[in-house]
Amino acid sequence: MKLLKTLAPAAALIALPSLGLAQDEGPTAGVNASTDTVFIFNSLLFLIGGFLVMWMAAGFAMLEAGLVRSKNVAMQCMKNVALFSLAAIFYYLIGYNLMYPLGTWATDGVISGVWGPAVLEVVGVAADGADDYSYASTGSDFFFQLMFCATTASIVSGTLAERIKLWPFLIFVIVLTSIIYPLQASWKWGGGFLDAAGFLDFAGSTVVHSVGGWAALTGALILGPRIGKYRDGKTVPIPGSNLTLATLGTFILWLGWFGFNGASQLAMGTVGDVADVSRIFANTNTAAAGGAIAALIMTQVMYKKPDLTMVLNGALAGLVSITAEPLTPSLGAATIIGAIGGIIVVFAVPMFDKLKIDDVVGAIPVHLVCGIWGTIAVVFTNADASFATQLYGIVVVGIFTIVTSAVVWFILKLVMGIRVTEEEEITGLDMGELGMEAYPEFSKS
Amino acid sequence: MKLLKTLAPAAALIALPSLGLAQDEGPTAGVNASTDTVFIFNSLLFLIGGFLVMWMAAGFAMLEAGLVRSKNVAMQCMKNVALFSLAAIFYYLIGYNLMYPLGTWATDGVISGVWGPAVLEVVGVAADGADDYSYASTGSDFFFQLMFCATTASIVSGTLAERIKLWPFLIFVIVLTSIIYPLQASWKWGGGFLDAAGFLDFAGSTVVHSVGGWAALTGALILGPRIGKYRDGKTVPIPGSNLTLATLGTFILWLGWFGFNGASQLAMGTVGDVADVSRIFANTNTAAAGGAIAALIMTQVMYKKPDLTMVLNGALAGLVSITAEPLTPSLGAATIIGAIGGIIVVFAVPMFDKLKIDDVVGAIPVHLVCGIWGTIAVVFTNADASFATQLYGIVVVGIFTIVTSAVVWFILKLVMGIRVTEEEEITGLDMGELGMEAYPEFSKS
Amino acid sequence: MKLLKTLAPAAALIALPSLGLAQDEGPTAGVNASTDTVFIFNSLLFLIGGFLVMWMAAGFAMLEAGLVRSKNVAMQCMKNVALFSLAAIFYYLIGYNLMYPLGTWATDGVISGVWGPAVLEVVGVAADGADDYSYASTGSDFFFQLMFCATTASIVSGTLAERIKLWPFLIFVIVLTSIIYPLQASWKWGGGFLDAAGFLDFAGSTVVHSVGGWAALTGALILGPRIGKYRDGKTVPIPGSNLTLATLGTFILWLGWFGFNGASQLAMGTVGDVADVSRIFANTNTAAAGGAIAALIMTQVMYKKPDLTMVLNGALAGLVSITAEPLTPSLGAATIIGAIGGIIVVFAVPMFDKLKIDDVVGAIPVHLVCGIWGTIAVVFTNADASFATQLYGIVVVGIFTIVTSAVVWFILKLVMGIRVTEEEEITGLDMGELGMEAYPEFSKS
Repeated sequence: MKLLKTLAPAAALIALPSLGLAQDEGPTAGVNASTDTVFIFNSLLFLIGGFLVMWMAAGFAMLEAGLVRSKNVAMQCMKNVALFSLAAIFYYLIGYNLMYPLGTWATDGVISGVWGPAVLEVVGVAADGADDYSYASTGSDFFFQLMFCATTASIVSGTLAERIKLWPFLIFVIVLTSIIYPLQASWKWGGGFLDAAGFLDFAGSTVVHSVGGWAALTGALILGPRIGKYRDGKTVPIPGSNLTLATLGTFILWLGWFGFNGASQLAMGTVGDVADVSRIFANTNTAAAGGAIAALIMTQVMYKKPDLTMVLNGALAGLVSITAEPLTPSLGAATIIGAIGGIIVVFAVPMFDKLKIDDVVGAIPVHLVCGIWGTIAVVFTNADASFATQLYGIVVVGIFTIVTSAVVWFILKLVMGIRVTEEEEITGLDMGELGMEAYPEFSKS
Repeated sequence: MKLLKTLAPAAALIALPSLGLAQDEGPTAGVNASTDTVFIFNSLLFLIGGFLVMWMAAGFAMLEAGLVRSKNVAMQCMKNVALFSLAAIFYYLIGYNLMYPLGTWATDGVISGVWGPAVLEVVGVAADGADDYSYASTGSDFFFQLMFCATTASIVSGTLAERIKLWPFLIFVIVLTSIIYPLQASWKWGGGFLDAAGFLDFAGSTVVHSVGGWAALTGALILGPRIGKYRDGKTVPIPGSNLTLATLGTFILWLGWFGFNGASQLAMGTVGDVADVSRIFANTNTAAAGGAIAALIMTQVMYKKPDLTMVLNGALAGLVSITAEPLTPSLGAATIIGAIGGIIVVFAVPMFDKLKIDDVVGAIPVHLVCGIWGTIAVVFTNADASFATQLYGIVVVGIFTIVTSAVVWFILKLVMGIRVTEEEEITGLDMGELGMEAYPEFSKS
Repeated sequence: MKLLKTLAPAAALIALPSLGLAQDEGPTAGVNASTDTVFIFNSLLFLIGGFLVMWMAAGFAMLEAGLVRSKNVAMQCMKNVALFSLAAIFYYLIGYNLMYPLGTWATDGVISGVWGPAVLEVVGVAADGADDYSYASTGSDFFFQLMFCATTASIVSGTLAERIKLWPFLIFVIVLTSIIYPLQASWKWGGGFLDAAGFLDFAGSTVVHSVGGWAALTGALILGPRIGKYRDGKTVPIPGSNLTLATLGTFILWLGWFGFNGASQLAMGTVGDVADVSRIFANTNTAAAGGAIAALIMTQVMYKKPDLTMVLNGALAGLVSITAEPLTPSLGAATIIGAIGGIIVVFAVPMFDKLKIDDVVGAIPVHLVCGIWGTIAVVFTNADASFATQLYGIVVVGIFTIVTSAVVWFILKLVMGIRVTEEEEITGLDMGELGMEAYPEFSKS
């Protein structure tokens, strides 16, 4: 992410292209590629990373559509398409410039940099007209950053599935993507106080995943569990309708995560930067593998039968866990960090059920709990990381997100109600709210 | 697209790499990257864009498989795989050199440039042996252009689903991809008369989408509606069998569109070009978002219940609408252009039903109507665009496609028949023509 | 693949970047791009290629989930996620350094190069600290090579579906990915004796696909056919549960194959290299198209009804067939090579059934038989290829894989048994081994 970008003068970025990043373990090679070439490589990294992270929106949609019951599948698809679209529009209208408030990025910083919609460079911009010729095109950066904002919203939709009304949910998404996410993201990636404090979060275990998780948790508490989920003190399993789609969704997310973490290096125009991006790809992959295998072994040992949804969530847990620092760990350390994430998820899922917090797809264990774990794990791999500072960042972001989310959820509850009627919930949101079914020819009735 | 490519001398391309494009809003930076590097970047753009557009073939397959009834799903998959394969073979055999007839692209222009199969550069070609060293590799260009041709064919299959026979459809695809598409595409992108007239179509709202749409419309008129679709003057809704797959297909298309529009910049070897590609990515995304949200709001307001398939088609409508000019609009303008596309689709779908034109997946509203809208919208964003010229292009391409398509459809109808028997249509094409089912364990019988 | 990499001195690689490849048809252009830029381009090729091949894991999962019966779908998803994860871990722990034993790649070659886990370059590595500054980053190479190893394992899971126990299968995967695959791969791509003998296999028709195929064949022979597959001397068709997913899986594999073959050029930092990558993309695509259309025509002619699963396997057969040499053939030759693959598969599938070798998804015909065909086809397109040497490579790799696989399968059979109980097989592995269903709301019971 654009860490310290607004603080580091452009000149320094030319000399040491990776200065803006959290890592200072090794010097970067002398820049032999021309400035034009570096600009192109960096922009290209954002574009490739951006389309890979955009693809994660499809991953969330498939994962969630697979894990809800068939009577709510069309609605879950609707929510995922709509939330991604709203994120695109509102991050453009408000979020982007709220996140990078100092506006050194845009040439017309004073005007567009404080508030107001994002403005891209003119068509066919010349080197001396580029907002930051020493770095990358504004359009590529906007495209990439937008996808992180949208991911945060995607996390929320799974937890609250099968009972939340469409429109209140979408209004929450608007507030989340235009204000809550960008504001707290600016504290770290906009060069704000968390960044100044030395808080480390390379690609967003806290800034993206825990924020989505906190917002989901707050919503789940206010919304309450699904009818019939907790009965006589026991948790009633409600199996997802299509585990193949859930598997597909997991693979999509896994693929997209290479863009999420890899392009968060923010540069690939030097030998050091592209080698770092390579490290990140390899570490991200192995962390996911570690998480999946850990969850596989844990469920085999604990329940005698391996659990596919746990393995899928284990892979995602590994991915979230490595996201705060996908660069510095060795392959072995990355595998272990991911594996611990996979173990956490196996314990966290039933724990939230005991607390009667109904999370349909397990997004809170995966994105919140492992987001916290990943942020703390940085202490073990980065000499310059401080446990206290990491905890400080986690807590500050957590409190902010809980409070702002709760305010929004409560207002929505008061003004329009956030939960469908009992009848609609039993019938299913598809027929109830949309008047259609996802699989009309396969319904049991 | 390779606009004006055959007219601009190579030397000019070196000096002003984006001269070949429709936009002249800003000068391009001095070329600091070496010629080799520019060649590699441009070729890489085509390869990345090409594989993203290839992926759209899967998007169409999933979208259509999700929107037909389960008894026709296997056939719809078959058609999509087969049409893409035939497009690959016949664009190679005939289409590519028909589309770029002047053959300045190929070194052996006189022979391979007029007619005959595409010929790529030799293995390990040296700079002085490259067909166009100042630009990009022939292989990358061929790969990219092929995918546009295949997309045109993909558009047709959805409209005619559930009743057209396999082989006549595939024969039509052969004619479409070897002659109809390349011939009209040459008028614009091969430096033909539409290009000379000043007609603007950056990535193919007209050249690709409306052509697919006109061919589909002509086919639908000649083929007639499905049995039971229009009864007693009313339209009978025939819901698709799997809206999750339709959603997946939409996300795939959305992703692929970054390649479709982004790589149509045709160059990324300069600061100006890569910044333009970035603009296009951002604009393409926001247009899709605008289309989806517009359709969501419209269906909520008009029908009181939001309609998922309309929202999906709204996103696609936004994408088609921005395709004629994804570069020059601001993010705000792009959102509005896409949103108008989304609104159009909500009205156009029932309109075609009133005309008893049975379009199974809504491809005519999305690709034809919004293709026309997008082509006209260029007038609002490009100072050098003329409404009359845009209309001229739309009409010329339309008449040509309707006439040639109609001739082919009628010949096919005469010679072998294009429609399955009534019995096969009721049983479903899967059992009728293929003797298999897509979901054999889930059939209702 | 990293052919001859360990033999060619780095200096030679700078001068002639494509020297390390099998092709010497044309000289490569003088290197105008800076060494940094070449390094970045090559690394980027590996990263893009790597994520595309990673995506193939999802393709195999969807293909196989679509071709098994619904009662075994969750298990098939589980196996695919787990095998990919195990491949990631064990290729890192053992396989990578076993495959490139001379260790010129790693700076600490003597220690890490012989055995032991893979070690990537340090964070922010400088040019003079890079393991091979004249080439690409170690991390990108590791990431790319890992995906080939994982693909080999993915091939096995389909053949043995619906009856093999989870854990023995996963243990086999561990041996396959840590020892069997890397060891034989080193003979060719590690600069071993097959490479020295002049054996040509550009992207792995033999090294990857036939190895997966031989391992699958050996397993199928030892495991035996599914209950009820062969009855009274006849083959009982057991249709897959979801042909849409099988189609999706095929498209995913098709897309991923551009990375598989394209990035096996191993370099794109020169005009010649990127033009070669472009050729490979185009050839790979047309071979798949040829295979699909050939299978379509063959099944139409032979059975009067085209067969969707055959067409899907035909496309895959075309892809496997072109993999041994995707660069040198013309587009026409590539189409024919692919088409012959498609024809082969139509005959090979019933042939294996006559031999009562039960291959659930047709992986042996596709990956083994067409892998052999593709390896032999090199003789027709490469002047420096020898039929005897190609056959030698096929046989050596085949015998090695059969013997080692058989030993592992027999040990597993003895120690823990490899087949589920008859009851579990009839109930389905999902309920039997996992205690869950993939489609719980759609089950027939």
